[in-house]
Amino acid sequence: MKHRILTIAENAKEASNTIRLLDSETKKEILNAVANSIDHHQHTILKANADDLKKGRAKGLAEPLLDRLSLTGRLDSIIEDVRKVAELLDPVGEIIEENILPNGLKLSKKRVPIGVLAVIYEARPNVTVDVAALALKTGNCAILRGGKETLATNKAIMAATHKGLKKWDISPYALQLIPIASRSALKYLLTLDHAIDLVIPRGGAGLHAFCRQNSTIPVITGGVGICHLFVDESANIQKAIPVIVNAKTQRPSVCNALDTLLVHEEIAHKLFPRLLEALIDKGVTFRLDKRAWKEIAPEDETTFLKAEEEDWQTEWMSLILGIKIVDSLEEAVHHIQRYSSSHSDGILTESSENAALFIQNIDSAAVYINASTRFTDGGQFGFGAEIAVSTQKLHARGPMGPKELTTYKWIVEGNYHTRA
Amino acid sequence: MKHRILTIAENAKEASNTIRLLDSETKKEILNAVANSIDHHQHTILKANADDLKKGRAKGLAEPLLDRLSLTGRLDSIIEDVRKVAELLDPVGEIIEENILPNGLKLSKKRVPIGVLAVIYEARPNVTVDVAALALKTGNCAILRGGKETLATNKAIMAATHKGLKKWDISPYALQLIPIASRSALKYLLTLDHAIDLVIPRGGAGLHAFCRQNSTIPVITGGVGICHLFVDESANIQKAIPVIVNAKTQRPSVCNALDTLLVHEEIAHKLFPRLLEALIDKGVTFRLDKRAWKEIAPEDETTFLKAEEEDWQTEWMSLILGIKIVDSLEEAVHHIQRYSSSHSDGILTESSENAALFIQNIDSAAVYINASTRFTDGGQFGFGAEIAVSTQKLHARGPMGPKELTTYKWIVEGNYHTRA
Repeated sequence: MKHRILTIAENAKEASNTIRLLDSETKKEILNAVANSIDHHQHTILKANADDLKKGRAKGLAEPLLDRLSLTGRLDSIIEDVRKVAELLDPVGEIIEENILPNGLKLSKKRVPIGVLAVIYEARPNVTVDVAALALKTGNCAILRGGKETLATNKAIMAATHKGLKKWDISPYALQLIPIASRSALKYLLTLDHAIDLVIPRGGAGLHAFCRQNSTIPVITGGVGICHLFVDESANIQKAIPVIVNAKTQRPSVCNALDTLLVHEEIAHKLFPRLLEALIDKGVTFRLDKRAWKEIAPEDETTFLKAEEEDWQTEWMSLILGIKIVDSLEEAVHHIQRYSSSHSDGILTESSENAALFIQNIDSAAVYINASTRFTDGGQFGFGAEIAVSTQKLHARGPMGPKELTTYKWIVEGNYHTRA
Repeated sequence: MKHRILTIAENAKEASNTIRLLDSETKKEILNAVANSIDHHQHTILKANADDLKKGRAKGLAEPLLDRLSLTGRLDSIIEDVRKVAELLDPVGEIIEENILPNGLKLSKKRVPIGVLAVIYEARPNVTVDVAALALKTGNCAILRGGKETLATNKAIMAATHKGLKKWDISPYALQLIPIASRSALKYLLTLDHAIDLVIPRGGAGLHAFCRQNSTIPVITGGVGICHLFVDESANIQKAIPVIVNAKTQRPSVCNALDTLLVHEEIAHKLFPRLLEALIDKGVTFRLDKRAWKEIAPEDETTFLKAEEEDWQTEWMSLILGIKIVDSLEEAVHHIQRYSSSHSDGILTESSENAALFIQNIDSAAVYINASTRFTDGGQFGFGAEIAVSTQKLHARGPMGPKELTTYKWIVEGNYHTRA
């Protein structure tokens, strides 16, 4: 197995020397050819997907997992996404900076592909297509390691993709699926820093920690969002409520959904009745700190529970909301600095002074003023597509689109210059 | 020891919440106060340095190491460097991008400090001052781990630095020396990803590999340069020779010095006599591939040796030069793609077509046309200072100056926006 993984990685590195040279127009045409080929092979792909689903059901996989695995009714929109990526602006080749030094040397900082990406994800076959499209768009090679529950589907998708590549005489090593499931094989892959330039895990906190701990290749960590909104005393209550409801309930299972609501003590009394009604209406249940418990004085102890310390450290991924009353902006900032995963945190306020203080003090990938945290997303930010959301500080922060899949090189042009 | 390291890291993280808010003018004045304080304590620092040198001699440390350790005659220029960093443009606060989305959300990408840096280096006390100055300039906190041979010197420097900080009521946790030498303690430090944002090793390949293998924190890898120059058949011989001599001999012990010279077969015959004379004059010795051996037909077998495979994989750090004759630009590119550490590689040519082909195909941090590789340096590139040279592709490539010690955050301003 090790030999096979090594070969895959080294073939990708070799292929990257030609893939990174493709011009924008060619990459666009290749992406459309891939979309056409996936479209042409819809039947085969859906058949493989039905096999995966059948096996999954036999194994007793949970319904939400089976749902994520299923391509039924979704393949057309996935193919459409590839065509959209084809139309995006190609970031590769941009001259980011240019400068003539006092000694006459001409210095250019040019945007180039990263090289070889390894993307580790779970049982979502749509990610296979997403990653393939974004890698091709940016002149990168990709090694894809999807969940074992979707192996047949992923193989069928990759076969169709390679048929699309073949028309353009593009090496199949540009996009390779690693059909491995064991953690020890993954561990080995993560040490191949001579061939792989970047590891992108897409999954739960456990997968991210595993990659960080075992990789000698740079890893983009992200995806875990313990997100906060602070309702400042000056907030417009009528306008604030839909924002909180949206942040918590519009899609509770994703990383940019709201986890903890901080409420200024001066506004809690006026805010709570209508807010709680709106949230309960959407099926939300609550974890209240002592002061919020006292303020709300709940009778229904299935909807309301007292918050434990660990609740503030939890990314709920569900319709649970922590609520804490604070006596100042400072206390809210302090809570967020302590518990936030630095993904998305916001303030609802009518005070531009408090907004400025909040922006200054909260060091998260995305800091919001009067908006739902749900906007932290490559599509919403206008990137056209997203490969991951980074919560670390190196290379990229927040949503990562095509540009974040590039690096740069320095080009130094002289007239036989020597250093004094 | 673990408890002490953990405390240092967590104190740094806490301090970073105030250090990152310092405005440019204040940081400038703090840096000048630090410079003044180091100047004021020159006597104490030099006394500590004399102690380190005495101990080092007693231990039998090699002369080059003792030389690097010594501050004699160097402290004034080190202090001057701090004043220069004070005058540099502060990159923090820059709005990198700004955009109003179709839904009216205002998106700003703002440059901010990274947070907490851990810098691991060897017995060079000047690095202590460099790192302290660059960290303060960019609003970062730094944990410094210098070589054990300079512990007394580093402690004296840090004490003087803290006295400078005290005048501005700046937390001493902004800059902390970890007085540890053991690899197991370092290993523990490298796992504190909740408190440290970036690890920068400055030292040999062994230290870099150790950090990559043991760190759960992002690591900037670099410093190892296996650098190439290719003499194209069209090169101007008279102008090319000084460039090659400069790249190899101007400072052979550094990472951007030349390691392997590739020579087009059509020009070798004309180039070698004068080139070899100039290089031998500087004390250079050679490792020749078969064709160069045949062409040169050396009689002196102390100056000329036959190259072994591993010679092409060696960063010489000394006056040794590998020479290989190639029959084409393609063969040169292929050799560089195989053996380069992607630090600095160049072509000497009069053909703009070949220059363009070389730039396109060589994916190194710095790619040179008609210039010495010795220019890959923050100072030479006009960054004003340098914390490291990165040879990886994430975050920063090539020389890292103040700007490369920053990241960004997204600020999203709305009018109670919700996601549809």
